[in-house]
Amino acid sequence: MSLLDYFRSSKVSSASLAKERLQILVAHERTSINQPSYLPKLQKELLEVIRKYVNVSEDAISVSFEQDDKQETLELNIVLPDMQAKNS
Amino acid sequence: MSLLDYFRSSKVSSASLAKERLQILVAHERTSINQPSYLPKLQKELLEVIRKYVNVSEDAISVSFEQDDKQETLELNIVLPDMQAKNS
Repeated sequence: MSLLDYFRSSKVSSASLAKERLQILVAHERTSINQPSYLPKLQKELLEVIRKYVNVSEDAISVSFEQDDKQETLELNIVLPDMQAKNS
Repeated sequence: MSLLDYFRSSKVSSASLAKERLQILVAHERTSINQPSYLPKLQKELLEVIRKYVNVSEDAISVSFEQDDKQETLELNIVLPDMQAKNS
């Protein structure tokens, strides 16, 4: 349940803000750690995709990455601007 | 906590399998529902990104999308092949 605990803690800390937000959680359950993680690279590409749909600055994005022997977790927290639709 | 409950239920049901897996959870907390959701479109693009890193067939991917007045949740569950690195 470590993943859930992790996600919960981030939810609680942001719950008081009445902004729209987008959270992306990527969890990779691994049976071995012989191969390097691709989550950091994946993160960059995910953000590029997100930016097609919402106007977000770097400041509005917080990223955390955690890793243990069983699982890697990438979490992106994005505070959306009040007008979320991308006009450009 | 509905999002956590949702995620937990999917975790439990898959816990007995000793496969590597990748879970992606996208949660969009909305302050209004005046605008159409972009998560279904986002889903397609996320899968395209994932496929750059892992060889996965359509069969290995399960997708669920839930929506209420406060939040939309997109969940992708991907069972990874034993040899997860993409060789092509």
